[in-house]
Formats: sequence, structure tokens, C-alpha cells
Amino acid sequence: MNFTVHTPADMGLTGIATFAKSPLCTDLTNLQADIAVLGAPCDIAVQGKPGARMGPRAIRDASTGFRMSEDGFYDPERDDYFLSARRWKLADCGDADYVPGDLAATFDNIENAVRLMARSGALPVVLGGDHSVSIPVSRGLDEVGDFNVIHIDAHLDWTSHCGDALLFNGCPCRRMAELPYVKRMFHLGIRGTGSSKKSDYDDARSRGDVILSPKAMRAMGWDQVTALFPRGEKYYVTIDIDGFDAVLCPGTGAPSFGGLLFDEVMALLEGAAAAGQVIAVDLVEVAPPYDDRSGTTAHLAATTLMNFLGYITKAQE
Amino acid sequence: MNFTVHTPADMGLTGIATFAKSPLCTDLTNLQADIAVLGAPCDIAVQGKPGARMGPRAIRDASTGFRMSEDGFYDPERDDYFLSARRWKLADCGDADYVPGDLAATFDNIENAVRLMARSGALPVVLGGDHSVSIPVSRGLDEVGDFNVIHIDAHLDWTSHCGDALLFNGCPCRRMAELPYVKRMFHLGIRGTGSSKKSDYDDARSRGDVILSPKAMRAMGWDQVTALFPRGEKYYVTIDIDGFDAVLCPGTGAPSFGGLLFDEVMALLEGAAAAGQVIAVDLVEVAPPYDDRSGTTAHLAATTLMNFLGYITKAQE
Amino acid sequence: MNFTVHTPADMGLTGIATFAKSPLCTDLTNLQADIAVLGAPCDIAVQGKPGARMGPRAIRDASTGFRMSEDGFYDPERDDYFLSARRWKLADCGDADYVPGDLAATFDNIENAVRLMARSGALPVVLGGDHSVSIPVSRGLDEVGDFNVIHIDAHLDWTSHCGDALLFNGCPCRRMAELPYVKRMFHLGIRGTGSSKKSDYDDARSRGDVILSPKAMRAMGWDQVTALFPRGEKYYVTIDIDGFDAVLCPGTGAPSFGGLLFDEVMALLEGAAAAGQVIAVDLVEVAPPYDDRSGTTAHLAATTLMNFLGYITKAQE
Amino acid sequence: MNFTVHTPADMGLTGIATFAKSPLCTDLTNLQADIAVLGAPCDIAVQGKPGARMGPRAIRDASTGFRMSEDGFYDPERDDYFLSARRWKLADCGDADYVPGDLAATFDNIENAVRLMARSGALPVVLGGDHSVSIPVSRGLDEVGDFNVIHIDAHLDWTSHCGDALLFNGCPCRRMAELPYVKRMFHLGIRGTGSSKKSDYDDARSRGDVILSPKAMRAMGWDQVTALFPRGEKYYVTIDIDGFDAVLCPGTGAPSFGGLLFDEVMALLEGAAAAGQVIAVDLVEVAPPYDDRSGTTAHLAATTLMNFLGYITKAQE
Amino acid sequence: MNFTVHTPADMGLTGIATFAKSPLCTDLTNLQADIAVLGAPCDIAVQGKPGARMGPRAIRDASTGFRMSEDGFYDPERDDYFLSARRWKLADCGDADYVPGDLAATFDNIENAVRLMARSGALPVVLGGDHSVSIPVSRGLDEVGDFNVIHIDAHLDWTSHCGDALLFNGCPCRRMAELPYVKRMFHLGIRGTGSSKKSDYDDARSRGDVILSPKAMRAMGWDQVTALFPRGEKYYVTIDIDGFDAVLCPGTGAPSFGGLLFDEVMALLEGAAAAGQVIAVDLVEVAPPYDDRSGTTAHLAATTLMNFLGYITKAQE
Amino acid sequence: MNFTVHTPADMGLTGIATFAKSPLCTDLTNLQADIAVLGAPCDIAVQGKPGARMGPRAIRDASTGFRMSEDGFYDPERDDYFLSARRWKLADCGDADYVPGDLAATFDNIENAVRLMARSGALPVVLGGDHSVSIPVSRGLDEVGDFNVIHIDAHLDWTSHCGDALLFNGCPCRRMAELPYVKRMFHLGIRGTGSSKKSDYDDARSRGDVILSPKAMRAMGWDQVTALFPRGEKYYVTIDIDGFDAVLCPGTGAPSFGGLLFDEVMALLEGAAAAGQVIAVDLVEVAPPYDDRSGTTAHLAATTLMNFLGYITKAQE
Repeated sequence: MNFTVHTPADMGLTGIATFAKSPLCTDLTNLQADIAVLGAPCDIAVQGKPGARMGPRAIRDASTGFRMSEDGFYDPERDDYFLSARRWKLADCGDADYVPGDLAATFDNIENAVRLMARSGALPVVLGGDHSVSIPVSRGLDEVGDFNVIHIDAHLDWTSHCGDALLFNGCPCRRMAELPYVKRMFHLGIRGTGSSKKSDYDDARSRGDVILSPKAMRAMGWDQVTALFPRGEKYYVTIDIDGFDAVLCPGTGAPSFGGLLFDEVMALLEGAAAAGQVIAVDLVEVAPPYDDRSGTTAHLAATTLMNFLGYITKAQE
Repeated sequence: MNFTVHTPADMGLTGIATFAKSPLCTDLTNLQADIAVLGAPCDIAVQGKPGARMGPRAIRDASTGFRMSEDGFYDPERDDYFLSARRWKLADCGDADYVPGDLAATFDNIENAVRLMARSGALPVVLGGDHSVSIPVSRGLDEVGDFNVIHIDAHLDWTSHCGDALLFNGCPCRRMAELPYVKRMFHLGIRGTGSSKKSDYDDARSRGDVILSPKAMRAMGWDQVTALFPRGEKYYVTIDIDGFDAVLCPGTGAPSFGGLLFDEVMALLEGAAAAGQVIAVDLVEVAPPYDDRSGTTAHLAATTLMNFLGYITKAQE
Repeated sequence: MNFTVHTPADMGLTGIATFAKSPLCTDLTNLQADIAVLGAPCDIAVQGKPGARMGPRAIRDASTGFRMSEDGFYDPERDDYFLSARRWKLADCGDADYVPGDLAATFDNIENAVRLMARSGALPVVLGGDHSVSIPVSRGLDEVGDFNVIHIDAHLDWTSHCGDALLFNGCPCRRMAELPYVKRMFHLGIRGTGSSKKSDYDDARSRGDVILSPKAMRAMGWDQVTALFPRGEKYYVTIDIDGFDAVLCPGTGAPSFGGLLFDEVMALLEGAAAAGQVIAVDLVEVAPPYDDRSGTTAHLAATTLMNFLGYITKAQE
Repeated sequence: MNFTVHTPADMGLTGIATFAKSPLCTDLTNLQADIAVLGAPCDIAVQGKPGARMGPRAIRDASTGFRMSEDGFYDPERDDYFLSARRWKLADCGDADYVPGDLAATFDNIENAVRLMARSGALPVVLGGDHSVSIPVSRGLDEVGDFNVIHIDAHLDWTSHCGDALLFNGCPCRRMAELPYVKRMFHLGIRGTGSSKKSDYDDARSRGDVILSPKAMRAMGWDQVTALFPRGEKYYVTIDIDGFDAVLCPGTGAPSFGGLLFDEVMALLEGAAAAGQVIAVDLVEVAPPYDDRSGTTAHLAATTLMNFLGYITKAQE
Repeated sequence: MNFTVHTPADMGLTGIATFAKSPLCTDLTNLQADIAVLGAPCDIAVQGKPGARMGPRAIRDASTGFRMSEDGFYDPERDDYFLSARRWKLADCGDADYVPGDLAATFDNIENAVRLMARSGALPVVLGGDHSVSIPVSRGLDEVGDFNVIHIDAHLDWTSHCGDALLFNGCPCRRMAELPYVKRMFHLGIRGTGSSKKSDYDDARSRGDVILSPKAMRAMGWDQVTALFPRGEKYYVTIDIDGFDAVLCPGTGAPSFGGLLFDEVMALLEGAAAAGQVIAVDLVEVAPPYDDRSGTTAHLAATTLMNFLGYITKAQE
Repeated sequence: MNFTVHTPADMGLTGIATFAKSPLCTDLTNLQADIAVLGAPCDIAVQGKPGARMGPRAIRDASTGFRMSEDGFYDPERDDYFLSARRWKLADCGDADYVPGDLAATFDNIENAVRLMARSGALPVVLGGDHSVSIPVSRGLDEVGDFNVIHIDAHLDWTSHCGDALLFNGCPCRRMAELPYVKRMFHLGIRGTGSSKKSDYDDARSRGDVILSPKAMRAMGWDQVTALFPRGEKYYVTIDIDGFDAVLCPGTGAPSFGGLLFDEVMALLEGAAAAGQVIAVDLVEVAPPYDDRSGTTAHLAATTLMNFLGYITKAQE
């Protein structure tokens, strides 16, 4: 809250940039919130253009346009309020520390932070960082029970190794698939050539994963797509911003044309929230150095997260 | 016209940047034109990111790619010429003066300029400025008779006050609604959460206004939407550039995803021109500091205005 | 290939930026390749915003994300590999020299280079430069036999003269139409007002050319559009990047709203590859000074070319 | 502090962006700090290019590269540590609320915040906002006793009115001169033509103010300049970032060539700290929308403030 | 002048962007002014990065911050007013037409415009365009009598040919040297390697030209440099913006490090104005596509010209 | 060389972007050149803003403005030619492979490449990458005999560890000091607070290293500084671009104000070349994502390297 001797205006551009202007909680052993946001500013293992370590701060900055309030957010299309601060407690837990050049230590920090957040009962919401951060995020979810993964992305992220490296931003889904508590994955928005090999796709298909391109989903209809999600199960939703069409996200390392539109991703997320219990969310690959002056990509990330948190909480109201 | 001793090429990038390279008329008491363009470079009362005061110059700059000529503009899709300079006289009236920090004086200047333009018989076309400039524009239209408002925007702009302020860029529609000569308003493109409260929407709905989101209009069909406009009445058309989808207008203060596409806005504007008499136009919230290098937003504004002026004049030919 | 003592990673950002990291061949009299890429960095005769001379280098830079490999590129949507380096030999022939202010010499260089490339049996792929480079490209194709032209563009490019000049980026199609071996042209994506006169359109129509706007093509359906291409004939495909919608190509001199989307252009190009023999390709009007930080336009150009080369070669496999 | 299970790295890019990563204190009636930072994100009354309302957040973001620590900052040139967190307590007080279009309310908020900060015994450090914010800052200093003003700027800021307005960013020094407790002002860095009239300069000179251009100061020598500051008196130091040469501050509304260099301003500030008691500091006119990609101007602001706070505290150690 | 019903503020950002907001005169046969500004938006023959055709509009835009007024511009360092509109009449003559790809026609237009301006008795001030525009400018000065040239630049611009071309932006000084009425040239600011050959320098030296690097001039002292200019003769002053150090002019095609500083160029220009009669001025190579967001280079150009016009007119008062 | 049927113009913007348009040699076991350029696109271990992995390509791109030629580069200030291609053979060896997230493998590749280059008798010139790449560079120089280090930088780069990491871009000089064949280091340009601790400086001083700030060197005079370099010894020169003043290098991760000017660094480099045998050069920390549109930082890097190579070779002619 800003200092004022008048009726507060509290515009988005003002004040300290925590996520949605929510209170800060950096003691994860004493976290009391329904939703807990953590930055994971790590791009140590990015294959292409770096910069996603600057994503959490940019997303927080953009998110201040969506300040939490007692009333919540009125949506005229649904004629309903979402995310009332009276009902839902959001906390910003700051960032997991990254150690330059030390991927193992950095992943440790993310993994342990996520585990503490999940243990507290809060919904962990992680702001990447490149997509490799989903590796420690998924490791940190080892206590929540088996879950499915809804993976929105242009790329399958199933590459086995890069050079001799096994941990990088092109392989989180293969690494998740190796975890015993990760059930089916729904890879949505996958398109374009060359990011993975046929054998990668075959490996994913062979374990029962669903892989759908934007065109395939449009042909099915969005309701049919979300009907694929089993009811009543747990879901970890990992959103690579490049699942959106390239024109929506210039500020990412590997944008891809022919991608998902805003309303389409919202339909997927609303469907996910309705299908079961979302036990973790991350949004990765926002790379501010390539974003436009207007901050379109960070704004897209903040809008997507706020809408998704609205859908998730509404499903529980 | 440029200096030449050869056949003129008169490329868009050359010459003094008046709107569409039209002649300058700064004596509004002696205005003789069919269409009169005025800059309203005011962003004193913007709630968020400022910069719209630089909009008029950027739009004029972009508009020089649409130089008025004797033949007019040939549209291959309609197989017809538009806006022949032989038939239609366009004048650029320069800018209404803004006074730093003095909203009242600045609004006075806009209001009086618009009144003089309207009184002359010309169609006033105002280049914002933030959306608060529609407050003095609407005041300056007090002599033209009762009119409807077609309001293209992402936001309802119906907030009652901000802090204790009553004049800012989030409230022009509420302020217009308080004018006795403003009839129904059609709020088109409205979407997203949080920019107005439910009670704001209810107030608008209770006076008979139409509020439609992009999705709702797509479901209706554009002909059905424009069929809602009463025939033969007067229309003030106020276009907030953020009614367009965010990817079309990075250069605005509050871009919003899931918005209107170019062809969709053109359909609305062509429908408006066909429905009745357009008695004033403004296009607001172009904020060049956030635009991309290519000037996409200013170019969109200039294209939109030139097309709309084509539709308006064609309806009268 | 990079220097390494380990398993190569060979990321896109590394190494010398030839097109798709293909080998360099600057002796056109000794060219042995299936596909030969030539830069034509000429914007001497651009009517509007210059900068397309910097297009070839930017497109090459972007193309390194699509490194040719033995396996080729796996497309999960088609479940097929494309452009295997085992089967298809790609060579980068460097640039045709431009001479400042000397359009004739510059065009000579392009024309002669294209003739040598075509004579070698390789498919010439020319990176513009502004659209005037299609004039020397088409001249250099005088030995390949009569061919049709598929012209993807926002503009008809049929202006007869500008000032007294006859060679500029608004007239390549008129100049091609004057060549005896150029048969029908398909002008696809044409839209907007003012870039050509009615008489220009009438001239094109009178020789049997097809002129279709994005809206008209959407109404027809893409299969119907590509069914218009005669089977078994030869095609020169000239792609002005501004045929795409303006939001996809900020880095061009004359972007135009309401344009073609990515999947739509891909449908046209796949249809062209299936219809007959593509004997030359150019992609023009990428102007990097206006592109966004992310290089969206250059990336679009590289993606479009790589996909198109995939379609062309797949049709021959 | 970031979450970590390892030795902290705590890089500048991480964590919530308070000033120098200092603790947040938004209850000004209970402020316990030696130095208190307040954002004044107001550019309502800027004469030229707006955007300084976005200054506080950009400066805070840049300042995180200067994280306060127990040891403080080691300066190899002086072989000394500065600003140890063991000795000096810094607090970030957030922002004074701005009310869109309501200059009076906004100024009230700034004035009252500064008064409370000064009353607490902390040194108020205000981040502008445009230079008009120095008007309420100086009003809020009414309880600290008479003080001199060291004013670093390209412009005299002594304009009497603009239009009929009396409060705007070109007049703070005239407004300060009207306060009974403001003694001599030292206007340093003043240069260029046209920003004030001769009569403005004469008014300033007539009250005994010192006005020196960069060239004049270079001719005098920096020691001679700072020797002009009376010893043992109180000083309010107001730094308009455009006092620096234009190449150092692209991100400001009215950059001016021929300005002060970095080392020169440091010499002035070190001299000011040595001369007497600094009772308030502001740094204004950082306008991020015009800054370069690297954030040079915000970085300059943060560096300047951290160095100055080092000089001020060192003088008291 | 803007429309107002109050005391005018007339801020720089408002109104139609003529040079210094001066009146427009496009009939050069009826020009009545002391100083006449002409845009020469030609970069057809630029060797490197194009974009200088967009220079005139950017310089005009920046120049509106220096609006001509009755009183003129007060310079506190000289305690004097400059460029009073009461005494000096400035006119903006618009642009010389450029014809795409047709250098001869474009040069004709510039040459003839300059001749008419000079014939009218006004001082021609030409805004480039690349440096090749100085070729037609110098041709158009054939009626003013023999004159010296003061040439501020990083490069000698004495290349004999490029490819086989004789007219391009690297040769204007060689072309001027071939004109019978061009006397000595003073090439000031020349530095760096590779832009001309030793024989080019020898040719210039052999005709008595003075060639001085920034370092050489600093060693001499600026008074000694300007003392080289013969008294009472005529001077054509051609300023390539890249004579300034690269950090001052990112927006140019061939910036060069180690260049002249702002105060240094002002010293040269003040010396030139004092030495004799300035009969023409041009300022070239401002290329806005490469300028920073703040418009530093265009601002530098406008400031340089306004100051120089002040020195020129002051020498005649 | 470009394709041409006319006299070549071979402008810098054309052709494949190898360093200075030199021939490519990627077989390091068969390297025959006097000077060999290697890219080291690694920023895996950067502490702050990433992006230096994109440095090599940007520097190469900028370097094409300095095309090697038979005559070499004429310097009018020294009246001498430099770097004639007749005398000096330059080769571009491409890049050392980086492996995402795998610092050890990446360093191996750099180290081995440098060793092979040095073994061949060529002067290795390495393009970073962040400053951590100097660690493998210095390791790869283990066969050239003992050498001194001239280290131009804003920062001492002597931090012992970051988190628990020992390899990152803040420690290369400490790591070099641990190598038995590294003699004295001259740390030039060091300034600012907080990048290293007093104990780091003390460690460097205790081994006899020279640490000089820009101010200290200016006070000494540049000849006195370079006189400190022992005659006839070997030198590895490592240039962190941020040794230059921040205004010269926006495109770097940690720019610092009050830094070295262009002519000053040239004086140091010319002095280094004169003092003894330069056995390796690197230039690091060019981070293109933060560079300005004009590419100032990459241009500075290319200019610095070309000048330095000129000084080195001239000392041997």
C-alpha cells in the first residue's frame, strides 16, 4: 500500500513489485497462504538465447497491474468476481537463489523451496527461468501424490541429452517421465520441426502421453481436448510461454509460429482447473531482454497466471 | 508537396507531417473543410503508463503513407475508389494546447476546438491523447443534437472516481452518460477483469447500453452486431486503440489480450458509417514510447482512421 | 561445425552464420548443390523505409536455428522427416554485390548470379533485399523455360512508374509481365488501399492473372485456392514478407494489417510445391532495422523458407 | 534474502526489488532508519516527455546490484568501506500515492510523507518523478530548520508559469525560493538556451544564488566550486538526472548536451557531504520509457545515490 | 501555434513539426526569409546502413523543442539572447523530392532547390540524407561566388569510386574539389582507419586542404584551429553527424569512436561564424532507424543547427 | 567475396560474417595463419545479466566493416598502413562448442582450441563470452611459456567463490593467479565499489600486481602507465569491454561509470604491443541483448580488436 493522506488510488505502477502486490513471505517454513509464488531465476542450462533469469522480476512488475483486493476481479463476461483477497490468501515467497554456473546447487534450491511450499498446503506457483526449472519443481512435488502433467508448449522437451548434458531446457518432460509419481502428460501446442527427434515423440507416445498440435486441437474443439483430462486427479500444469504463438511472446528464447492464441490457452487452463486438483503451476521461458518495449510477454505471463489462479480458485469456491 | 523539377514521386516519408499530408488550418473560426483533424496531446490524467500526449504526432507521421490525392484510394476488394481529394476536403487543424498539470485548461482547449470544428460543419476527428480527452470532446459536441456513442475499447471506462479524482482516463463513458444529449452507448470489445466494478457495468446496463465482448460478437456475427445500431441516428465514434488485440497495439498504456482483430474493427466501423450520421470521431491511447520500432500502433491508428473516413464518405457519395 | 573435444551440442547461436549452417560456395560456375541460397542485399530502389539490404544477413542469422543434419527435421504433425542432409545438398552462395547508388550494376550482379545458379541445376533461393530484386531474379531465369509466378504479397506491385523511374520496389510484377517467358501470375494476399491504381489491377486482370485477398481466400478455402495452380507446370514463387499480417512482420518497410497468417501461407506454399516444379524462390522485404528485439521477422522468413524447402523436396522424394 | 539450502549467492537480479534490497517500511509513523527511501512516481505536471512516474521502480530495480551487506562496499580507490549495514540502517518506504490528474492530492501525499520521514530522524531520499516533486519535498522539510539547496541540473527551473499553471517541472526552484526557510541555492550544471528567460536568471542571481555551467566549473576547478558551500550548514540536494551529459541519461525527458560527467557530479556530491549536514536528497527525471535497453539512466541514478549515501555517511563516521 | 482559449503553453511536443515550428514555405520562387530549411531525404547512394532519408523528419521533430519566439533564446553562459524571431525570419521549405532508385533526378531536385534558396538571399540549411546530398548542394551554390568548405566529419569522403559508381556518400569532398568555385576545404574530426586510401588523403593535401583529427585539434587548441579559417571569406559548412563521437550519435550509418565532443564542435562552429560569411549549411547522416529511444542523434542535430544559426546570426547583429 | 560481374564494391554489410571477412578455418590441427580468431560463446557462469554467448556473432557482424585487404588500413593520423593482407594472414576458426549447463565440457572445448591455436604459431584472439572464458583461455596457454597479464576491466575479478561455485565471471584473475606460468598482472581501469572485497585486492597486491583506476592513470599519464610493462616479456591481454566507460558499452552485463575512454584504451593497447610479445588476446562480456540499435558495443569491440591487431603486427613489421 502506498503512503497517502487521501483516498488511495494505488495505481499498478506504484509500490514495491511483489506478485500482484501481495505480501512477502520469505520464511518458507512458516508459510500461511493458499497460493504461494516463487521466482526461479535460472537460465544456466538454456540451449539457446539466455535471459529467462530475468523473467520473475519482469512478471512481478507486470503483475502489479492486477493488484489483489477485497472484492476481487470482476469479469463482465462471466458476470462474476474472481480471486477475492477476503477469501484467498496469496503470498510472494521471493526467489530461489541461483548460483552462477552451478546448476546442481541452483536446482537444489528450487526443489527444496517447492517441497516446503507444497508441504505448507499452499499451491506452488513458480515463475521461471527456463524450462529446465521444471525438473527441480517436479522433484519438489514428490510428497503430493501421483499427478498428471498438463504441458503447454511449442516443443515436446523430451530430448535425451545435449552434448553429454542431461539437464537443460529441452528435456524437462523426459526427466519428469523418469519420476515414479508422474502419470500421464498432456503435451499441448506442440508444433514445428526439428526440436525433438521421432524417437523422442515415440517414447512419449509409448507411455500413453497425449501430444496435440494447435491445429489438431482446433479440429477437435477445445471442449473435446479438455475432456481428455481425467476427472478428479491431480495436475501439475507447466506453461512454456512459447506455447503461445510467436507474435504473443517475442520475449522468449525460442518463439514458434502457428501457436496457440490467448483465448485458446485460457480454454485449456479453465478446463484443467475444472478437471481436477491443480497441485502446482509453473510458467517458464519469459526472457525479458527480447521482449518488446511494451513488455507484451511479461504482461501475457501475468495475465495468464492471474486468470488461471482465478479459474483454480473458482473451481473450489 | 515536395520541391521537384521532375515528375513528383512524393513518397510518404517526405514532407511536413500533417495528417494524410492535408493542408493545415489553424484558424478554427475560418475552417472550410469536410473533415477536420485535431490533435489532443493530453495524458495528464492517465491512470497508468503515460505517453499518449505523443500520439498525435506519431499518428500524423504514420498517416503520410496515406497521402490524399485527386483520384483517391483504390480498394481492389471493393473495386472502388475512396476519399478522392476532388470530392472531399480534409484539413489538419493542428493541436489543442495542453497546459502541464492543468487538466481544466487543457480540457477547455479541446472542448472549444471541437465545438468550433463541429460548428463549421466539418466532421471533427480527434487524435488523442489518453481516453480522458473524450470528456472534453463530448462536451464540445453539445450543439450537434442528441447522439449515440459507439465505443470500441477493451475497458468500459465507467469508473466513478480514482482516489478522489473525477476526471481521468478510466471514466469518460461515465462522464458522457451524465450529459443530457448522449443517448445509448455501444461498448464493443470489452473484456478482461478488474478494470471496472460490477456496479459500473450495472450502471451502464441500466441505462440501456450494449456491452459486448469480442467473443460475444464473434458468436453473434458482425452483421448482427452492427444491426443493433439504430438507423438514421447520429453517432459519435470513440476508438480506444486497446480495443484491438494487444499484439496489434503494443504502443498503448493498457493493452489487453483476446481483443478485436483488424478486420473485425473494420466491420464495426463500416457498419457504423452505414447506420447513420457520424458526427465525431476520436482515436485515443496511442502511446508511442511503448510502440515497436516499426510504429505498428501508430500505423494501425492511421490505417483505421483512413479506412473509417473512407467508409463515412462513401456512405454519403 | 564448432570445435569440440566432447559430444557436439552445436547450438543454433554458435558458428558462422551461413544459411542453415550449410557449406559456403562462392564460385557459382562450380556449384554442386540441390538448393543454392543467394543474398541480394539491395534496397537502392525502395520507395519507403530502407533497410532490406540488411535482410540476408539477418535471415541467415535466424536460419542457424534450423541447422541441416543427416536425419533432417522431424515434423510431429506429419510424422515425417524433411530435408535430410543425406538426400539434399544445400549451399550458401554468399551475396550478389551491390554498388551504392548504381541500380543497373547491382541488378546485373543479381541477374547473372541467378542465371548461373539455375544453369547449375540447383534451385535458386534468393534472400532480398527489397522487392525490386525480383526484377533481376526473373531476368536471370530466362533459360529455365516458361513459368508461372506465385506472388505472395500485400501489394500488387504493378505500378508503372514512380516519378519517372521504372525500376523500384512497387513494380516487379509489371516488369515480370513484360518478360515473354512469364505466364500467369497468382497474386495472393493482396489487400488495402492506395498501393496501386485501378488501371494497374485491370492490366493484371486482363492478362489472366489471379488476384486474391486474404478474405477472398478464406472464403474459398485454401484447397480451392491451391487447386487454381495448374498441375505440372513451372513456378517461380516470390514471397514478400508483408504478405503476412503486419503483426508477424514488424521488420518490413510497408507492413499491412489484415494479412495472411502463418498457417495460411504454409498452406499456399505446400500447395505450390505439390502443383508443379518450383524453379526459383525469393523472399524479400525483410528490413531488420524495424524488426523487434526478438528478430520476429527474420525468424519468420527463415521458418518460411525452411518449411517451403521441406515441401519442395518432399514432393520430389 | 533468497531461499537457499546452500551458501547464498544472492545475485543482484534476484529477489524483490526494494532499494538496495533494504527492508520495507510502509508505516511512516513508525520509521526507524538512518536513511529512508521514498518513491514519488508523479509526472502529472511534466512539460515535455512524460514517463518519470516509472522512475522509482526502475531505480529500485537497478539498485539491487548494490545490495546492502554487513561489510559494506569496498572502494579500492579510497581503500575504505562504505555503507556497512552494521552501522547504517536503510529502509525502503515504498511510494507516495499519485492520483491521476490530481496534482494537489499527489503533492500532499509526497509532502506529508517527507515530513514524517524527516520527523523520524531519517534522511529522506526521494526518487522522482519529474522535478515538480521537489516542490512538495521542499514543503515537507518545513520542520528541519533553514537550509541551502544544491541543485544539479541542466536547467534553472525558475520559470514563473507555464500557460497559467504555477506547478510544473520547470519551476521548482522558483517555488522553493518562495519558502522562508530556503536559503541560498547553488545551481550547478546549468547550460543551454531557451529553458528560462533572462529575468528568471536575474531573479535567482538577485537573491544571491550561485549559477554555474559545466564549463565555468571546469575552469574554476571542482575544489573551488565545492569551497563555495558554507561549512556546517544544512543542505537539501536535488539532483535532476539531466544535469549529467545527455549521453549518460537517454532516459530523461529533456536531456542536454555539454553536461556534467560522472566523476564531476561525484566531486560535487562528495563536496556537499563534506560541507555540512545533508538533510534531504532527491533524484528526479529518470524516465524509463526513453532509457536504453541496458537501463543506463536508471543505473546511473542508482550508482549516484549509493555513492552519495556513502559520502554522506562517511562524513559522519 | 496551437488552439487555445487560455494563455498558451505551446510545449515542444505539440503542433505540426516544421523546423523550430517556423512557418512553411514551399514556393521557393517566392521565398522571403533570412534562413531557409530544406529536407533532402535521400539515401539512395549510401554505402553502408541506410535510413538517412528519414533524417529530415526526425530532425524537424526534435527541433520543435526549440520553438522560435519573439524574444529568442537566452543563453545564460553568454548572458545574451539569440535568434529573436523579431529580427530573424526562418522558413521551412519542406523537402526536395526523392525518386526511388533514381539518383540523378533526386540530385536535380536538391540542386535546384538550393539554387533557388540561395538566389532568394536566404541562408540555405539542408537536412540530409546521407552525405552524398552535399554533391547537389554544392552544385546548387554555383551562383554565390567562390567559397571555402568547413567539413566536420569522421571520414575524409574523398573516395574516387565505389564499384564503378562515382556518386555515393563516401565521395562528396572529391566531387566538390572538382567544382571550380570551391576553394580550400577544412576537414575536421577525421580519424580512424580504412575509410579512404593514402592517395585520397594525398590528393586532398595537395590542393592545400587542412585535415585535422580530434587529437590534433585538441593539441592545437580550438582557437588555433579556428584561426586557420581565412577572415572575410565565404563558407559552406557541411556537418556529418558522425564527426561527433560515436556515443553522441548512435543514429548514423558509420559512427566512429574517438570523435568530437559537443563543446568542441560548438567551438568550431562559433569560430566558423566569426570568420566570414556562412553561405550554406548542411547536416547529414542522421539515420533514425539506428537512433536510441530518446532520439539522441536527432536531438543532437537539432541542437547543433539551432546553436550554429545563433552564432551565424549573432555575428551579423 | 561477393558475386559480381562489375568492379567489386564489397561493402561491409554484404557477405558471410566471418571476422573481418577473413577465410574460415575450422580444422585447428591444420591452422596456417598469423592471427586466429575463435568465438567462445559461453555465458553459463555469468553472475548477472546473461547474453554474452551472443557476443561472438555480433562482433563478427560488426567486424565486416573492417574487411581485410591487400593494402591494409590507412591511418591518416600515423600516415601509415596497417594489417595488410599481403603480409598478415588472418583466419576465423569458428566457435568453441558450448554445452548447455555443462561448464566443464564447455571450458574443455575452449581450452583445447586455444592450445591448438597457440601450438600452430598463430596469435589466438578469443571473442567472449563472459569473462569466465578467460579461465580456459589461460589454461590453454600452458605451453607458451610464462607471461604477464594486462587486464583491462572495471572489476578486479578476484572473487574467491560465489555461493560455493569457483568458476564464474567474477573470478578469472584469481584463477589465473593460481596458474604457475602467470606472472604479474596489470589490472587497469578498476573502479567502483562492491565488486570485490578488500581481501581480494590485498591478495592481488601481495603478489605484486598493479591495480590502477582510470583516475589514477590519468594522473600518471598514459606513457607512465605503459612504461610499467616490462620490456621483452610475453603478454596475455584480456579486455573486458566494461573497462570502457558505461556510455561506450551499453551492451554488457555490468557496465560501470567513470570508465576508460576510447583513446585511453588505445594508448594502453599500443603500449602493450610495444612492450613485448602479445601471445594471446581475448575480448569478453559483449552482451548483444542489451546493446543499442546501432550495435555500439559490438562495434567498439570490433574496432578495438582491429586497432590492437594493427598495433601488434606493426610492432613486428
